[in-house]
Amino acid sequence: MLDLASNDYLGLTRDPRVTKAAADAALQWGAGATGSRLVTGTTELHAELEAELAEFCGFPAALVFSTGYAANLGVIAALSGPGTVLITDEHNHASLIDGGRLSRAETVVVPHRDVAAFRDALANRTRKRALVVTDSVFSVDGDLAPLAELAEACRDHGAGLVVDDAHGLGVLGAGGGAALTAGLAGEPDVVVTTTLSKSLGAQGGAVLASERVIAHLIDTARSFIFDTGLAPSAVGAALTALRIIRAEPALPGRARAVARELAQRLADAGLSASTPEAAVVSVRAPSPAEALEWSLRCRAEGVAVGCFRPPSVPDRVSRLRLTARADLTPSEISTAVEVILGSNPASGI
Amino acid sequence: MLDLASNDYLGLTRDPRVTKAAADAALQWGAGATGSRLVTGTTELHAELEAELAEFCGFPAALVFSTGYAANLGVIAALSGPGTVLITDEHNHASLIDGGRLSRAETVVVPHRDVAAFRDALANRTRKRALVVTDSVFSVDGDLAPLAELAEACRDHGAGLVVDDAHGLGVLGAGGGAALTAGLAGEPDVVVTTTLSKSLGAQGGAVLASERVIAHLIDTARSFIFDTGLAPSAVGAALTALRIIRAEPALPGRARAVARELAQRLADAGLSASTPEAAVVSVRAPSPAEALEWSLRCRAEGVAVGCFRPPSVPDRVSRLRLTARADLTPSEISTAVEVILGSNPASGI
Ligand SMILES: Cc1ncc(COP(=O)(O)O)c(C=O)c1O
Ligand SMILES: Cc1ncc(COP(=O)(O)O)c(C=O)c1O
Repeated sequence: MLDLASNDYLGLTRDPRVTKAAADAALQWGAGATGSRLVTGTTELHAELEAELAEFCGFPAALVFSTGYAANLGVIAALSGPGTVLITDEHNHASLIDGGRLSRAETVVVPHRDVAAFRDALANRTRKRALVVTDSVFSVDGDLAPLAELAEACRDHGAGLVVDDAHGLGVLGAGGGAALTAGLAGEPDVVVTTTLSKSLGAQGGAVLASERVIAHLIDTARSFIFDTGLAPSAVGAALTALRIIRAEPALPGRARAVARELAQRLADAGLSASTPEAAVVSVRAPSPAEALEWSLRCRAEGVAVGCFRPPSVPDRVSRLRLTARADLTPSEISTAVEVILGSNPASGI
Repeated sequence: MLDLASNDYLGLTRDPRVTKAAADAALQWGAGATGSRLVTGTTELHAELEAELAEFCGFPAALVFSTGYAANLGVIAALSGPGTVLITDEHNHASLIDGGRLSRAETVVVPHRDVAAFRDALANRTRKRALVVTDSVFSVDGDLAPLAELAEACRDHGAGLVVDDAHGLGVLGAGGGAALTAGLAGEPDVVVTTTLSKSLGAQGGAVLASERVIAHLIDTARSFIFDTGLAPSAVGAALTALRIIRAEPALPGRARAVARELAQRLADAGLSASTPEAAVVSVRAPSPAEALEWSLRCRAEGVAVGCFRPPSVPDRVSRLRLTARADLTPSEISTAVEVILGSNPASGI
């Protein structure tokens, strides 16, 4: 099966160096972390990953969670509360939405990527504290948030900015992610959440922030305190994947180039494909039923693609979601394009 | 360091069979699951673990989540909602509380293990649907919920019962957990959540329930749908740990016997130790400061113990939390007892 459905953007999940690191970590440190990070669940490997990830992404500190989902829950709830207003993009990931629900903060949902609407919400807020919350690369369509403009709006209005960089780490720039690319890395009022389960090929989540924010999360983030630490094998795998990206800084650009080529060839053939700036390509389908049929036909032809339909889409639009991988070969790209075009229910074949 | 602080009750986290299974799974299946269980994140290993876990615990079906925390969030929110009342024990784990917050259900908190109070809340509820939610083995003190009585109350009042068996799986009975021990396994209105990160020595969570409930969770549990699947190494480790418990059914009883011996010897020496029915021993400390000092002194003497103080305790009582392990030797138990007694700040040494 040719995989255009996973989030393994750099093809590192099955890279022998990464799987060996996972195996070695399990053999050396144990199959599990055995307890909360605060009790027995922190190994030297966790600390090493945190230090190297922070450095790579340009932040003073990092904190590893058991999943990216847990990182988002923990950060939003720990940095807000009933006295805060969360101003969130309507396309944000489910885990950010759930973090907002847990926080009991007031939430204002603004139109997708609409900086003026974010500014309005900041200006007219009824609470003193405000956090702007956005994906960096939106998970379904792969489009980018206007991070620099949002950061400026936050600065103008004395608000914090939380960026979920799950689909940006390892993909944008030389891999350091969206905040680094936007010149925001290390800013004291910017907090980045991310995951170890996509470009880094493992499992787990992480937060990049100031030392002060990280210390606050260690003390108060419930999904950090009351959760077993990330298993050593995932930590070891993510650490080795990170080192591979540092050693091969062209990898992220390759994933983006594959995405652009896929999208271009599908658009040239008349499909309504997105213009990708990261490694996700979105192709519109006429209806939920046709999206499903399309994806099933692709799968039957040996190409796995994602199928997103209501209610799993932020709007009413059904689509195929294709993910590029840095290690897709020209012939795999051609096969993928042929199968996707040939499987299109709307083409009447 | 002698470990009486982790939740590795059966000593399987570093068992060579379990770490080898973790390593083998990473090498064979990859370091990560690469996507949601619904897209690319399910391997044959996941299905195998679900089938064997369900059989072992006496339920028709099981579903593996990325963490026990995620399992609790997913289950509570997916099985309730604004039309439901959640009736929850005041000592319940943080992840169950957070699940309740996410669900937007009405929540009634009842006094610890008070069956009459549960019955009252069921009888006087203002919503049609009700779920009783309880830990099986309470995480801080290790005491047991009155599961059979709660199930009867639920039956009498047409309510569902959700049991978090994180500290019961692998510890109670022959390891099949609290529901099996209480004769409730497989009941259609009983849903069990558990974790793969304690007795099974790995990472991840699981839900045990009817086929119908599991199908509903697959369709609606946000922490299942919008989260990367559990890494294969953790799945492989948990599966091998499960098989070890099946092959060595005396292991759970050994963990409980170690706990009873620890508690008895500490009580004999005048400490206020709990009477453990699972593998957790709780020892009261006079104050938060003394609890902390006590635990630090133990650590300095080479014995790791947990220290729980407000706000991480369900009441105002600070305590040491000791966990028994099936593989603690008589001489390790003696060392632990000596160090704990010798480090007691209240003993004036
Ligand atoms: C934008 C975004 N944030 C957070 C997550 C959660 O990360 P994880 O799956 O590692 O828990 C995901 C995907 O699962 C995601 O797409
Ligand atoms: C009672 C209880 N439920 C759920 C959890 C969460 O499980 P996990 O740590 O595997 O996410 C824990 C411990 O962490 C727990 O003690």
